[in-house]
Amino acid sequence: MKPNPASDHVYFNDGFKCSSISINTNLNEMNGDANGAGSGNGSQGSNEFILTDDGKKIIPPMKPMSCAKSWLQERSRKTFKKKILHKRLPILRWLPKYNGADAVGDLVAGITVGLTVIPQALAYSGIAGLPAAYGLYGSFLGCFVYIFLGSCKDVPVGPSAIVALLTFQVAQGSWQKSVLLCLLCGMVEMLMGLFGLGFLIDFVSGPVSSGFTSAVSLIILTSQVKNILGISAKGTTFVEIWTQIIHNIKDIRAPDTILGITCIVVLLIMRLLPSCKVGPKEPNLRTKTQNIINKLIWIIGTSRNAILVIVCCVMGVLLHSYNDGTPFKVIGYIPQGLPSFALPPIHLNVNQTITGKEESFLDMVRGMGSGLIVIPLISLMENIAICKAFANGKPVDASQELIAIGAANIANSFVQGFPGTGALSRGAVNNASGVRTPLSNIYSGALVILSLIFFTPYFYYIPNATLAAIIIAAVVFMVEVKVVKPMWRAKKSDLVPGLVTFVACLVLPLEMGILIGVGLNVIFILYSAARPKLSVDVLTSPGGTEYLMITPDRCIIFPSVDYVRNLVNKQSLRNNIPVVIDASHIYGADFTAATVIESLLRDFASRHQLIFFYNLKPSICNLFESLSPTEFVVYYQEQQLDELLKERDYRQSKTDGTAAATAIALTV
Amino acid sequence: MKPNPASDHVYFNDGFKCSSISINTNLNEMNGDANGAGSGNGSQGSNEFILTDDGKKIIPPMKPMSCAKSWLQERSRKTFKKKILHKRLPILRWLPKYNGADAVGDLVAGITVGLTVIPQALAYSGIAGLPAAYGLYGSFLGCFVYIFLGSCKDVPVGPSAIVALLTFQVAQGSWQKSVLLCLLCGMVEMLMGLFGLGFLIDFVSGPVSSGFTSAVSLIILTSQVKNILGISAKGTTFVEIWTQIIHNIKDIRAPDTILGITCIVVLLIMRLLPSCKVGPKEPNLRTKTQNIINKLIWIIGTSRNAILVIVCCVMGVLLHSYNDGTPFKVIGYIPQGLPSFALPPIHLNVNQTITGKEESFLDMVRGMGSGLIVIPLISLMENIAICKAFANGKPVDASQELIAIGAANIANSFVQGFPGTGALSRGAVNNASGVRTPLSNIYSGALVILSLIFFTPYFYYIPNATLAAIIIAAVVFMVEVKVVKPMWRAKKSDLVPGLVTFVACLVLPLEMGILIGVGLNVIFILYSAARPKLSVDVLTSPGGTEYLMITPDRCIIFPSVDYVRNLVNKQSLRNNIPVVIDASHIYGADFTAATVIESLLRDFASRHQLIFFYNLKPSICNLFESLSPTEFVVYYQEQQLDELLKERDYRQSKTDGTAAATAIALTV
Repeated sequence: MKPNPASDHVYFNDGFKCSSISINTNLNEMNGDANGAGSGNGSQGSNEFILTDDGKKIIPPMKPMSCAKSWLQERSRKTFKKKILHKRLPILRWLPKYNGADAVGDLVAGITVGLTVIPQALAYSGIAGLPAAYGLYGSFLGCFVYIFLGSCKDVPVGPSAIVALLTFQVAQGSWQKSVLLCLLCGMVEMLMGLFGLGFLIDFVSGPVSSGFTSAVSLIILTSQVKNILGISAKGTTFVEIWTQIIHNIKDIRAPDTILGITCIVVLLIMRLLPSCKVGPKEPNLRTKTQNIINKLIWIIGTSRNAILVIVCCVMGVLLHSYNDGTPFKVIGYIPQGLPSFALPPIHLNVNQTITGKEESFLDMVRGMGSGLIVIPLISLMENIAICKAFANGKPVDASQELIAIGAANIANSFVQGFPGTGALSRGAVNNASGVRTPLSNIYSGALVILSLIFFTPYFYYIPNATLAAIIIAAVVFMVEVKVVKPMWRAKKSDLVPGLVTFVACLVLPLEMGILIGVGLNVIFILYSAARPKLSVDVLTSPGGTEYLMITPDRCIIFPSVDYVRNLVNKQSLRNNIPVVIDASHIYGADFTAATVIESLLRDFASRHQLIFFYNLKPSICNLFESLSPTEFVVYYQEQQLDELLKERDYRQSKTDGTAAATAIALTV
Repeated sequence: MKPNPASDHVYFNDGFKCSSISINTNLNEMNGDANGAGSGNGSQGSNEFILTDDGKKIIPPMKPMSCAKSWLQERSRKTFKKKILHKRLPILRWLPKYNGADAVGDLVAGITVGLTVIPQALAYSGIAGLPAAYGLYGSFLGCFVYIFLGSCKDVPVGPSAIVALLTFQVAQGSWQKSVLLCLLCGMVEMLMGLFGLGFLIDFVSGPVSSGFTSAVSLIILTSQVKNILGISAKGTTFVEIWTQIIHNIKDIRAPDTILGITCIVVLLIMRLLPSCKVGPKEPNLRTKTQNIINKLIWIIGTSRNAILVIVCCVMGVLLHSYNDGTPFKVIGYIPQGLPSFALPPIHLNVNQTITGKEESFLDMVRGMGSGLIVIPLISLMENIAICKAFANGKPVDASQELIAIGAANIANSFVQGFPGTGALSRGAVNNASGVRTPLSNIYSGALVILSLIFFTPYFYYIPNATLAAIIIAAVVFMVEVKVVKPMWRAKKSDLVPGLVTFVACLVLPLEMGILIGVGLNVIFILYSAARPKLSVDVLTSPGGTEYLMITPDRCIIFPSVDYVRNLVNKQSLRNNIPVVIDASHIYGADFTAATVIESLLRDFASRHQLIFFYNLKPSICNLFESLSPTEFVVYYQEQQLDELLKERDYRQSKTDGTAAATAIALTV
């Protein structure tokens, strides 16, 4: 191992006299060397880090005016560049290379997803508190938009259980508000994408996301229990709904309950089908018949929702003609044909509101509140989860995805859809069906259009309990109990934000719950910024002098610097020997730090104790120096400490003085 | 320089098979060594940092139950310990050692501060929008309480300009609300102190604090201009007040204006007196007469406010008897005698509110809003600023100060005082007058009581313009223009939160302004946590193999870990050579990081690229391992890299293969 690379120089500044011994030459050499080969282990020591967002070195800062001008030039030049066009219109990347294999893959995947999205759309409308038709309205136009703008092949745009629940909590089952919400969320998503705010979901940590998803699943499950039991229960939060269910439990309807529970059991069994295989374990050894059977089993398992809906629908039709009225609650009339293309409602008259008061556009927007931020973020989270799950380590462009789902939602809002995103469950189906490009969306969209035109009369007979069973059988696996154990093993403190989010989402409105979780997590970060760890060691210099080495483990910025000053003073008052601050790990500082370091140096000067900085990065050195502190001394090589002590006539009171007198040849 | 201390061991974990080659022995040795002498430069390398809040090592975590039990025992034992008693009742520290010199110092300082606090109390009542008497009511009982609980000798409790302005913005000139606010703020302060929340002011950075103070000074100055001009102007924010002043400029009163401006000029000149000295520069060479003259000049300069008030008051009395009515607006009737000792008002009837509606206790509290958090924090900030200014590097106990000013405010609220704190201007006077202990507060408190009993009839004649002049001459120096230049030189980006706070405080309510500033600063911290810098170098191992060394400069936690994964993947796809993550600077990680690192390892495994971790702290190593990632290999010595590459049959495609074949003797 090589010695510290930033060697052979000492740097100090006594009061206002600026040192003439510069370290710049050596550092420039080092920086020049940083991207080259053969510089040994150059990362330790006093080298400046080089920002490498895409492997390029940072350009030294220019003057503000010229900087702004060249930025504009650069910007306008870039906007029309092919790379940016490809980035913003991903269809240009894959369409020219589109081939037959892609077409087959997309067709199969599109149809499979289409068979999944139709029952899901009908069911998720119920979660959003809307008639079943609205789910279908939001499942085709957005798909077509996504083909042009989407950067991820596996994303099937449409209704999602989580976003549907959020829509319900924000729009409270008013279709006008849901459609307006779809437009506004789309616009927020698009703006966030254009301003590159996709990074915001980075602040939702794993535990918070798990807590949120689990709570949402339980709430969705809860909201469907009433459909299984055939009773009515209103409310938005977990506690409210359960209270209502218990209150109305006497109205339980036996046919719905029996049908619902049967459907759940059937779905859970069919869920295991895709992993069942006949024949030998090795795929190559199977006969053609075995392969066809396996494929059939897989298709039946994957389109279990569609099959169940068809079976129950047929059962409903038969029972109806036999009985003159089904024993089950059914979803009822769905208007046949495509929805009208119209502006989303921007005003509610007296008959359209629950309160019976007229509501202007502003009233409606005000009622949506933080939902306008939370729904786009959660939509992005779910969407990005699909992209990442199947990206094989390739980077995911969150901003482009925001633009794509934003545009899809805006389009959907003109055909009376409610907010949607890439739903995780269909994403998995899409990938497993061998999707190749976003073009698969065209087939699922087309299937939804066909069903709207031809099949809506038959949808009348679909029992509510069947749709509830489909939802319950899906969300029950989204309760992330299994994540608790590794979290407990890995880092117990991470359970706190997860559990807090989980409980908060259950008892409060969802958007409040997740904001509380994120807030708590942010407090963890701030605490860690405010309370660095310092290691304190009494060491002996090469010349034999005892000194106190204090090593902070991270950057010194405003929330932590007073704490560091107090701690350094405390330790230094306890051991009246020279103090060295090892700044190897201090990668950043700010103006507040500079002022407090200046006070710290004055504290030391007032009690005639020596203090030195070891291995301080030059940029931070410049920052601290700008306040012209007294006796600010930085050195970069261990041996220089003795030289510095000698210069200041320091003699250890405890030792016999020989230690400090030992002269060491320095290579300054 | 010694080589890396954590040497001679290699640590890896292939899949689920846990490695038997442990590094623990070596590390325990290291930790045991960390606080001892002679361990060389032990701070670099893979040692774990030791938390040293007071120089003690951390006790290894116990089981939760036994932990809680022993914590309780420890806690109850500690509560009754002498040290804690001394901490919570600081009078026990200094009273037993109290001597004659202390008594003289405190007497002189107490009287000087008393002469300052009386005119300030009258003036600051005006800032709070209250009759002058309330300032005096809040200037004695709290002082006596502080003697027992205060930990800082220089703090004179009483009205402060900044807190008075905040009180005005929150209570809007209602004395009932101001007094209730005083009680509630006191209680919040006390609770914050007991829960150790004093650290919250660490989150107010230097620039934000400067911006806030400057804006407050300008607003206070603005609020007093109307008194100088003798016109009326209502409003709370900077813009509102100036609009009103310009609107009413026609009502300007010449006598008030002339008196006000004269007073300001006189005060600014008298302000220079304390630094004027007659006789030789060396104090020792001065004659006794010269010393007495110097002392007199100093006293006149320091009590300039009291002198000016007395002069103007006498002038008012004379003009009144001569003219039958003064030409100036005067502060008017102040009830003689001490205020009654009574509960603060907790309910407003119809006649007591501006709106003419009754207000319950809850209505009043709701109206105060975030003021109940911001006023205590700003009070603490001002108070701590005094403590730090004169502490000479000794640590300041923010929690104890919170308890002390909280108790003082609670006491004051029972004698109809409005919120106060240790005011910076009087703190400086106190220190300069040679204060020795908090006992000086008894004299200033007594002086206020005397003035309330005997002098209030004369206060009637004090011109408003004189009090306004006192305020203006004080706050004009609080506009921190001089801090901009060093900030510009040191770190230009730090100007942003400062300027934003300044502008926000001028145009919005103050508490909003400072919250915006703090919020912006917090975003800076979060951004830095979310976007670590990574340096990327192509290096050659001792055995001659090229590899990619990626060094993140800080901890890997949830907001940054996806970014790091993307960047590492991007760089690794570009250079298809083995990748080493140098984890020397990674001091922390969380569960989210562990999951993403697990995905990163899978990304690498799927494209058959090698990835190793160098110098990863054992605690983080355990964290990452808890998710049982595939091919997770950590090494701590540079030479081991070649061994690891050889084990995995890695051959560089570009080189002729000899590099990888070079065997290096390892001391595993």
